[in-house]
Amino acid sequence: MTGSSDPLLAALRRQAREAPDSGIVEIMKYGRERGGVMGLWAGEGDTPTPPFIVEAATRALVAGETFYTWQRGIPPLREALARYHTQLYGRAFSADEFFVTASGMHAIQIALALTAPAESEIIIPTPSWPNAAGAAGILGARPVEVPMQFGNGGWSLDLERIAAAINERTRVLFVVTPSNPTGWTATRDDLEALLALARQHGLWIIADETYARFWYGDGPRAPSFFDVMAPEDRMLFVNTFSKNWCMTGWRMGWIATHPSLGQTIENLIQYSTSGVAQFMQRAGIVALERGESFVAHQISRTRKSRDIACDILGRTGRCRFKAPTGAFYLFFAVEGESDTRSLTRRLVDEAQIGLAPGTAFGAGGEHFVRLCFARDPLQIEEACGRIAGVLVKR
Amino acid sequence: MTGSSDPLLAALRRQAREAPDSGIVEIMKYGRERGGVMGLWAGEGDTPTPPFIVEAATRALVAGETFYTWQRGIPPLREALARYHTQLYGRAFSADEFFVTASGMHAIQIALALTAPAESEIIIPTPSWPNAAGAAGILGARPVEVPMQFGNGGWSLDLERIAAAINERTRVLFVVTPSNPTGWTATRDDLEALLALARQHGLWIIADETYARFWYGDGPRAPSFFDVMAPEDRMLFVNTFSKNWCMTGWRMGWIATHPSLGQTIENLIQYSTSGVAQFMQRAGIVALERGESFVAHQISRTRKSRDIACDILGRTGRCRFKAPTGAFYLFFAVEGESDTRSLTRRLVDEAQIGLAPGTAFGAGGEHFVRLCFARDPLQIEEACGRIAGVLVKR
Repeated sequence: MTGSSDPLLAALRRQAREAPDSGIVEIMKYGRERGGVMGLWAGEGDTPTPPFIVEAATRALVAGETFYTWQRGIPPLREALARYHTQLYGRAFSADEFFVTASGMHAIQIALALTAPAESEIIIPTPSWPNAAGAAGILGARPVEVPMQFGNGGWSLDLERIAAAINERTRVLFVVTPSNPTGWTATRDDLEALLALARQHGLWIIADETYARFWYGDGPRAPSFFDVMAPEDRMLFVNTFSKNWCMTGWRMGWIATHPSLGQTIENLIQYSTSGVAQFMQRAGIVALERGESFVAHQISRTRKSRDIACDILGRTGRCRFKAPTGAFYLFFAVEGESDTRSLTRRLVDEAQIGLAPGTAFGAGGEHFVRLCFARDPLQIEEACGRIAGVLVKR
Repeated sequence: MTGSSDPLLAALRRQAREAPDSGIVEIMKYGRERGGVMGLWAGEGDTPTPPFIVEAATRALVAGETFYTWQRGIPPLREALARYHTQLYGRAFSADEFFVTASGMHAIQIALALTAPAESEIIIPTPSWPNAAGAAGILGARPVEVPMQFGNGGWSLDLERIAAAINERTRVLFVVTPSNPTGWTATRDDLEALLALARQHGLWIIADETYARFWYGDGPRAPSFFDVMAPEDRMLFVNTFSKNWCMTGWRMGWIATHPSLGQTIENLIQYSTSGVAQFMQRAGIVALERGESFVAHQISRTRKSRDIACDILGRTGRCRFKAPTGAFYLFFAVEGESDTRSLTRRLVDEAQIGLAPGTAFGAGGEHFVRLCFARDPLQIEEACGRIAGVLVKR
């Protein structure tokens, strides 16, 4: 958090000054200064973007696709998104439901700018990836954290607590499923219950289903709001190319919503980033159309790495978690370690492993740490072995 | 503007719903539907990004620079920005004064999010590129247009009118110099007067000096707020790689400001786009370090095209303008043509030339049209010949 003894800082808009530093970036900086750390702190793996995707971008670049382009995204990418969703969700989608954004984060920023006036409240079940709360705060809205419950059955949504948090200022339910960081994944019943609440109170749901494909249950993907919604529901889906296709560094995402919002979303893109490079969008098309075997390979790898991490850390006898049903994080508490900011620093120092402290993920996550297992199973075995060594030593 | 008879639209945040459509995009859509139009409506030329810049990006892509990176921009790009400014402005700059953004527009969005609370007022001398006003409105701030004067000496700033527009809600003066669309360029006296006003009232100046190099007066660049400011002044510079290096489609810009704002700006980047692709930033470094002869060539070409456009349209006897001293636009009024939205449609239909209507640029520009002459002089000769043909016919 920035102080205001500096006169320039003091002259800034309050909501900008008060935007929280990222608790994930903080430990990353700590680790980078030390060097030689295997970083499992961020939401990305060890695999660069595959060559067939990279080549689509380099071809377009060399061909001179370096001019301004459509604010909503180029038509062939929006059509590819429609076909991809049609295939994955088993019903028809059309290109005019899709909008290309300058990252999943940018999709969230736009979704909030569409729905969250100053002084309004955004309900976020936590622990949750902190950036939606950060973006809401900058808009002058108030993120309201509603902790999920952790018990022997793992994480669960506390619907009564969510219902109780709704008041006349509430405008949005922000739902991440599968969850980053907990791996909790909404069941169809959960989705129906959340949608019923939203309908009853006239709320928007912003659904972050980024990890829908990283799903360790039955079927090719996690349950989705697409399965339970009607076209006229107040739904905004935010998503990204980052995870499925190892494109974290590209900064490209999308919004899916009702086409009637099209011109408004185009204007918000115009007045924030004015669009996404066309040569990057060409890569997005190839990812969607030719990426399935790559995605399948990735998911089978994260499943193996998940099992290894759960096995090794489980055997320490000090780690408390439930094997995640979705996403690619193990979110675990360590018996007797309540200060996870200090625990993550110790793991950097003594195991050369970088984890993210649960304090970065809001209410309910304070006593946990997040490990990203989107890596080679051998590396995860090595990393978890080193972590176990430090935990068992004490 | 979007209506609100649609129930989903009606449920949106008011400031999002009311964000204006771009008046430039509107005529572009009109022209694209007809086809075969030489589009001089947008702020970009006919030249794709030069190969030496493209190659830096493709090399980085192929080398696997596809992971998350620094939110403020990679250190070597920030250092290159410092060296570039040191060279251009003749005094020392350091890397910690620079922040890489996902376009010049994104730099403006962040600058406004830093300085403009809801209900505050942003003074914008107009005619001006409309996007700053659009971004301010989405934040819930109020853009206050203060028309410049057009007379026989060309465009001039009305300092008294600007001073009169300042009240207790005013937070920002947004100054574009050289101006898009008018080509007006602030003199050192203008800059000092604006800075004095800002100091007196505790305002921020957001300085958009994107076109500083496209300057047809003495010296290598236009006068700049960098020439007159002190380090502790409330200054935010927004800029872009788009124009100098023909990188409009890349979406990469920067902010220059006091380093004490660093962590706050990092947070605003984190919660809006979460950074810029590292492989694009590699291209930015090469543009800054090896782009000078390309920039010089571009400027000499726009100067020729400017002279041709002024000559041909001047000879119609119906066009009113002063040759622009900066930027790469001719902003001219046509005698007897007050409806420029309809004039630009007629020029599409009858001359197959696309211009932007002055109505897109705020108060004072209604009776003008904007022609971008950042093109091959032969094409500008052809285009202006065709425009003159239509204008003389009547």
